[in-house]
Amino acid sequence: MTANHPHPSAALAEFAANLRFEDIPAPVLRRAEDLLLDCLASILAGANARAVQAIERYAAAMGPASGPAQVLITRRQTTPLFAAMVNAAAAHVVEQDDVHNGSVFHPAAVVFPPALAVAQALGRSGKDLLVAAVAGYEVGIRVGEYLGRSHYKIFHTTGTVGTLAAAVTVGRLLNLNAEQMLHALGSAGTQAAGLWEFLRDAADSKQLHTAKAAADGLTAAYLAQEGFTGARRILEGAQGMAAGMSTDADPARLLDRLGQRWALAETSFKYHASCRHTHPAADALQQAMREYKLRDSDLAEVVAHVHQGAIDVLGPVVDPKTVHQSKFSMGTVLALIARSGRAGLAEFDAALGDQDVAGLRGKFRMELDPEVDSAYPERWIGKVTVRTTDGRVLHARVDEPKGDPGNTLSRPEIEEKALQLGVYAQAATEAEIRGLIDAIWNLENLAHVGALLPAK
Amino acid sequence: MTANHPHPSAALAEFAANLRFEDIPAPVLRRAEDLLLDCLASILAGANARAVQAIERYAAAMGPASGPAQVLITRRQTTPLFAAMVNAAAAHVVEQDDVHNGSVFHPAAVVFPPALAVAQALGRSGKDLLVAAVAGYEVGIRVGEYLGRSHYKIFHTTGTVGTLAAAVTVGRLLNLNAEQMLHALGSAGTQAAGLWEFLRDAADSKQLHTAKAAADGLTAAYLAQEGFTGARRILEGAQGMAAGMSTDADPARLLDRLGQRWALAETSFKYHASCRHTHPAADALQQAMREYKLRDSDLAEVVAHVHQGAIDVLGPVVDPKTVHQSKFSMGTVLALIARSGRAGLAEFDAALGDQDVAGLRGKFRMELDPEVDSAYPERWIGKVTVRTTDGRVLHARVDEPKGDPGNTLSRPEIEEKALQLGVYAQAATEAEIRGLIDAIWNLENLAHVGALLPAK
Repeated sequence: MTANHPHPSAALAEFAANLRFEDIPAPVLRRAEDLLLDCLASILAGANARAVQAIERYAAAMGPASGPAQVLITRRQTTPLFAAMVNAAAAHVVEQDDVHNGSVFHPAAVVFPPALAVAQALGRSGKDLLVAAVAGYEVGIRVGEYLGRSHYKIFHTTGTVGTLAAAVTVGRLLNLNAEQMLHALGSAGTQAAGLWEFLRDAADSKQLHTAKAAADGLTAAYLAQEGFTGARRILEGAQGMAAGMSTDADPARLLDRLGQRWALAETSFKYHASCRHTHPAADALQQAMREYKLRDSDLAEVVAHVHQGAIDVLGPVVDPKTVHQSKFSMGTVLALIARSGRAGLAEFDAALGDQDVAGLRGKFRMELDPEVDSAYPERWIGKVTVRTTDGRVLHARVDEPKGDPGNTLSRPEIEEKALQLGVYAQAATEAEIRGLIDAIWNLENLAHVGALLPAK
Repeated sequence: MTANHPHPSAALAEFAANLRFEDIPAPVLRRAEDLLLDCLASILAGANARAVQAIERYAAAMGPASGPAQVLITRRQTTPLFAAMVNAAAAHVVEQDDVHNGSVFHPAAVVFPPALAVAQALGRSGKDLLVAAVAGYEVGIRVGEYLGRSHYKIFHTTGTVGTLAAAVTVGRLLNLNAEQMLHALGSAGTQAAGLWEFLRDAADSKQLHTAKAAADGLTAAYLAQEGFTGARRILEGAQGMAAGMSTDADPARLLDRLGQRWALAETSFKYHASCRHTHPAADALQQAMREYKLRDSDLAEVVAHVHQGAIDVLGPVVDPKTVHQSKFSMGTVLALIARSGRAGLAEFDAALGDQDVAGLRGKFRMELDPEVDSAYPERWIGKVTVRTTDGRVLHARVDEPKGDPGNTLSRPEIEEKALQLGVYAQAATEAEIRGLIDAIWNLENLAHVGALLPAK
C-alpha cells in the first residue's frame, strides 16, 4: 500500500493521532459526556465488590501511595497506571456500563478509566479527554467488529480489544504522532488477552480483564512515547491478532467510514439492572404507567407479550430466592417498575423478601407473541396489555429497548441513573454525585482535569 | 474426575503447591542454581538495550521509588512487580538465556526475575527460591509442550506460557495452597499473550513479552492470595488457552511424569553468542584447538562439515558489516574460537573491523556433509577437519552442541560465561560478579534472600 493508502493498522493509528476536537460532531461529544458520567457512576457502584477490592489491595501494595491520579472507589491518589487499573476493575462489575451491540464490546470500562487517570496526571483539558475517549471508542469498536463472532466465542472482547482502545485513548492524551500510535497499537495488540473460560466457574476474571486492558493499553502508549516499537500490522499481519484469535476477521470493518460514522454514538446504555430479556416488557409497562398515570394499586392484571427466549429463560423463575435470581424474574422486574418506575440495583436489593413486591408479582404473566417472537433477535419489541382495577384495558408498545441508540436515555434519565449507581455502594454522597454531574456537563470548558471527587 | 484424579490444571496446581525441597534431586537443584546464575548474568548483559531502558523508565515513572526488591540493571529498589518486570525485560535481550528445546520456551527469563523479586520482598530462603523456580520450570515447560507447535506458529510461547510459569513460581513463594494455586493459574492463563508479528518489523515486543509474563504471572499469584478466583480449567477448558490458542494441544504432555521427570534438567544453555547454525562447528573447532594444543597461527585451513541449512543461512555472509551480521558469519565465529577460545558478546563487538579476524576468516570454509545433514535437525553434529601449517590433518567431532543436556556446561564454564555477560554492559564489576557467583553457589544455605548486588 502507498502512503496515501496505508494498511489498516496504520490508517487507524493515523486517524487516532490526528483526530481534532473540531472534527467531532457536537452530538457525539455530548454522548461521550453521557457515557463518561455513566461509567463513573458504574465505577462507584462497584466499589464494594470483593474482586474489585482484591485488585485495589494489590494496587496499593505494588503501586505508589501518592501521585496525580485518583482511585475513585477509595479516593486515594497514585500513578495513572494503578488508578486506571482499579477504576477499570470497578467499572464493569455491576454490569450497568455501556455496550456496543455490533462489536459485543463494553468500551466505557476500558476507555474512561485510563483517559481520566492520564488526563489528571498530565493536566489535560476536558476537550483533550473527550477527543481521546472518542478516538478510543472509534478504534476499539471497529477492531471488535473486525475480529468478529469467532473471536468472541473464546475471547472476552472487552479484555482483548479493550487493550487497543485504552492504548489509543492514552496515546491521544500523550499526543503521540501517527508513527508512535502505530507502535502503541502493536504493543497493545501483543498484550491483548482474556478468555471466557472463567464463566464456567463464575470466577472473578471479568474484573481482571477490564483492569488489565486499561493498564496494558496505558503501558503500550507510554512505552511508545519512550521510543519502544511494536508490530506495524498487529491486527492484520500473518502472525497478528486476527491470525491467532479469529477465523472470520473482516478487514473491511476496520476502517468502516472512519471519521464519518461515529461508532461511539451507536453505544447502548443499560437501563434496568435486570436480565436483558425483561427489558422490552419493562419499558412498555413503564410507558403505560406514565401515559395513563397509573399507580401500582391500579393494576388488576398485566400481560407481557414476549418472545420464546424470554419464556425459556425467565419462565422457571417463579419465586426468586436471591437478588441475582430476582433479576431473572419477570414478575419482580415488572413489580418494581409498577411501584417506583425503576428497576435499578438498589430496588433489587430492597425487593428481596419484600411482601408487597411478592404480592404484586402474581399480577404479571408472560404470553408468547408471534410478532415479538418473529422480530427477535434483530429487534427487541416490548408489548404489554394492562387491565386496570376500574376495568380499562390499556396497551403499550416500545419498538427498541430503552438505552439503545434509537431509544436512548435523556440527560435527566442519565442523571437519575448516575445518582442511583453513584450512591449504591456508599462510595459517594448524593451531593458529590450532583457535583460530578455538573463537572461532566461542563467538561468541555475545563482547562485541566483534576480529581473528580474530594479526597476522603 | 475424582479428587484422586483431578483434571490437568488442578493436578499441576497441586504439584506446584505441594512440591517440597526434599522431593527435588540434588542434581536438579544444582542445575537450578546454574540457570539462575546464567539468568542474572543475562539480565546484566541486557542493561544498555534501548528497549530495556524504555521499560525501566516506564517502571520508574509508574512504580514506587523504594521497596524490598532490586532492579538489577540500575540497582534501585522498588516493589516486586516492577523489579520482576524490568529484570525480565532485560533477561532475554542478548539472547544468551536458556532454552527448553521440546517446548521452545525460555524459562529462566520469566521464572527467575519474579522469583528473586518476591523472595526479596518476603525474605524467603534460598531453598524457597529454588523450590519455587523448579515448580515454575516444571509447570511452564509442560504447558509449552501441551500447547504445541501450532501455538508457537503465532504465539510467542515465552510470553504466553511464561505468564503461567511466573504465576506458579510466585505462588510457591507466597505458599499458596493447591486451590489458590489453581486460581493463580486461571488468572495467569487469562492474561497470557504475545504474538510473533513483531518479528517482521524487528520491533521491541520480545522484551515486553518477558516483562509482562513475569509481571502478569506475579499479579495472578498475589491476587489469588487476596481471594481472587480464576477459571479452574484455564488450560483444557472449552474456552480456555488450548481452545483459543492451539490446534494440536496434547493433554498427555501436561502431567508427563510429574515429579519424576525433571524438565528443568533438560534445559539448554546458550554457549556461543552466534547463530545456532554455527555452534556445532564452533564446538568441534574448540575441541580440536584444545586437544591438539593449537594456536590460531597453527591453522592453514579449516573445513567445517555442515548441514545444508547452515550453508543456506550462513553462506551469503562473507564480509559482515555489523555485529549482528558477524554472528551469522561462520568465518568470524571460527576465527574468534581459534584466537581466544570463545565467541561471546564482547568478542563479537571487538571483532568488527578487526584486521586479524578478517585475515583469519579466509582460512575457514563450509562443506556439505551427508552424515551431518541427514542427522539434522534431530541431532546437530559438529565436525571439522583442520590442516595445520606444519602439514598435519586433524579431525574433531562433537555429537551434541555445547550447552545441551548431553553436553552441558561445567560450573567453571558457567562461571566464565557469567563473568563475560555480567561485565559486558558495565552493569557490574568483575568482583561483583564473583560475589554473585559465590552467593548463588551457596544459595541453599541462605536464610533470607536479599539484594544480590550492592546499591549504587
